[in-house]
Amino acid sequence: MGSIGYYNGTIGPLEQMRIPILDRSTYFGDGCYEACFVCNGKGFALEAHLDRFETSLKLLRIDMPCPREELKRILYECIAASGEENALLYWQCSRGTALRRHNFPDASVRPNLTVMVTPKPYPTAHGTVRLMTAEDIRFSMCNVKTLNLLPNVLANQRAAEQGLDGAIFVRDGRVTEGTHSNVHILKDGVFFTHPADRYILKGITRGRLIAICGRLGVPVREEPFYRDALFAADEVLISASAGGVRSVTEIDGIPVGGKDTTILHALQDAYAEEFRNETL
Amino acid sequence: MGSIGYYNGTIGPLEQMRIPILDRSTYFGDGCYEACFVCNGKGFALEAHLDRFETSLKLLRIDMPCPREELKRILYECIAASGEENALLYWQCSRGTALRRHNFPDASVRPNLTVMVTPKPYPTAHGTVRLMTAEDIRFSMCNVKTLNLLPNVLANQRAAEQGLDGAIFVRDGRVTEGTHSNVHILKDGVFFTHPADRYILKGITRGRLIAICGRLGVPVREEPFYRDALFAADEVLISASAGGVRSVTEIDGIPVGGKDTTILHALQDAYAEEFRNETL
Repeated sequence: MGSIGYYNGTIGPLEQMRIPILDRSTYFGDGCYEACFVCNGKGFALEAHLDRFETSLKLLRIDMPCPREELKRILYECIAASGEENALLYWQCSRGTALRRHNFPDASVRPNLTVMVTPKPYPTAHGTVRLMTAEDIRFSMCNVKTLNLLPNVLANQRAAEQGLDGAIFVRDGRVTEGTHSNVHILKDGVFFTHPADRYILKGITRGRLIAICGRLGVPVREEPFYRDALFAADEVLISASAGGVRSVTEIDGIPVGGKDTTILHALQDAYAEEFRNETL
Repeated sequence: MGSIGYYNGTIGPLEQMRIPILDRSTYFGDGCYEACFVCNGKGFALEAHLDRFETSLKLLRIDMPCPREELKRILYECIAASGEENALLYWQCSRGTALRRHNFPDASVRPNLTVMVTPKPYPTAHGTVRLMTAEDIRFSMCNVKTLNLLPNVLANQRAAEQGLDGAIFVRDGRVTEGTHSNVHILKDGVFFTHPADRYILKGITRGRLIAICGRLGVPVREEPFYRDALFAADEVLISASAGGVRSVTEIDGIPVGGKDTTILHALQDAYAEEFRNETL
């Protein structure tokens, strides 16, 4: 049946759904979102995404649009309405609908819930990407999955115009994350990833990779690394709920990685296995 | 008749207007805006706002939603529809309507134009405000008047909860601007204001104040100043199209200013006179 939209109780074809012009998402980006993969009609890592959704809302001081169990029921209702077995499930919450004014609206104004389900086949386990670096000009609130995504949009577009799959943000020389992924490197058998501070999103897939490293005996160091480290790394990886774990083969036109496919594939295969097992 | 909304050719009561859920403003904040005062049915400094609107669009790589003369016609049509003599005229443009994907949509997707007109009396010439300071966690693209305004919303709310009128952003110790105003100080007869780089919006009212200073023989220094300078200043001023030129009487609970009312009032009166003359 294709793409499905939901807004505050109404479900319909996504392209036909409409929302009030005064929803604060439209003029302030005043809200947050989540997205996860749906396979065989099941949302992968849905509980972890709901946990993070609650955290984002709390940091933005927005109430949950409805109790968590009710939200899950709505999400599965949207999945069912789409009729898709494999899809991307996206949901967002804005602070509410009110005349444009920076202050929060009155307590009587309730948050707005949006859901979108779009068909999407899950990527292969050993996917690769080619990227570029871009100055990280984003705000210092990247730990919140907000609707303020203009820098991501602009950097991603610059990459796309060079035939690339995205960009890696670099802030004051340090690699933070991708335009819509976390970035990690393998060097001498150690997995390096930026600490989960306010400069990156604490990725669900990133968290699974760290846990997988633990099980496989790969040491993990959550510390910042510099742009040069990307080129000196044995492998560069990106992780995202929508794309899984992919290896980076080129950055800024320079080949990278390919020097530790053993650990790389072990991580990718372990993640793919978790995905399969949990969406049976 | 009250508040009026417009979206891509349709005019109606603001609270009833609806837009597609897939407008990129709603999930990326992918667009920019302008706002100016309407007095006696005339948009004050409208041409300067249209200039800046075109600049913002260009920096975001969004096409003008329609030729400038057509846009002006639409804005005045909305003002007329509101029936208001004194109002705030707000308009914004998003990159278009498309399935959520970071890359720009196909060239066939046209930008969306939104207009809102809300009744608003113009403030008095010698208005005052009480403010707090807040860490400037915003992105490094503050020269563009974008729809990514979450840090402004959150800082403004924290101020409101203390009974204050807004916040002053401080980045690495330097005063950048207010949550929705530019910030300036008078010290020993000199007007200091942050340079128009990527950390502040190049305010229309700020530009007028600089020109007024030139006419009145007040030296202007466009250079960063530190938080301490706010408390050492003879006067602290904020300027914004929606609020005019106001003096700050208190910051973080400490009284400020009040030591050079001669220049302060001369600037405020000159601005008020321009406003009156141009909206006759």
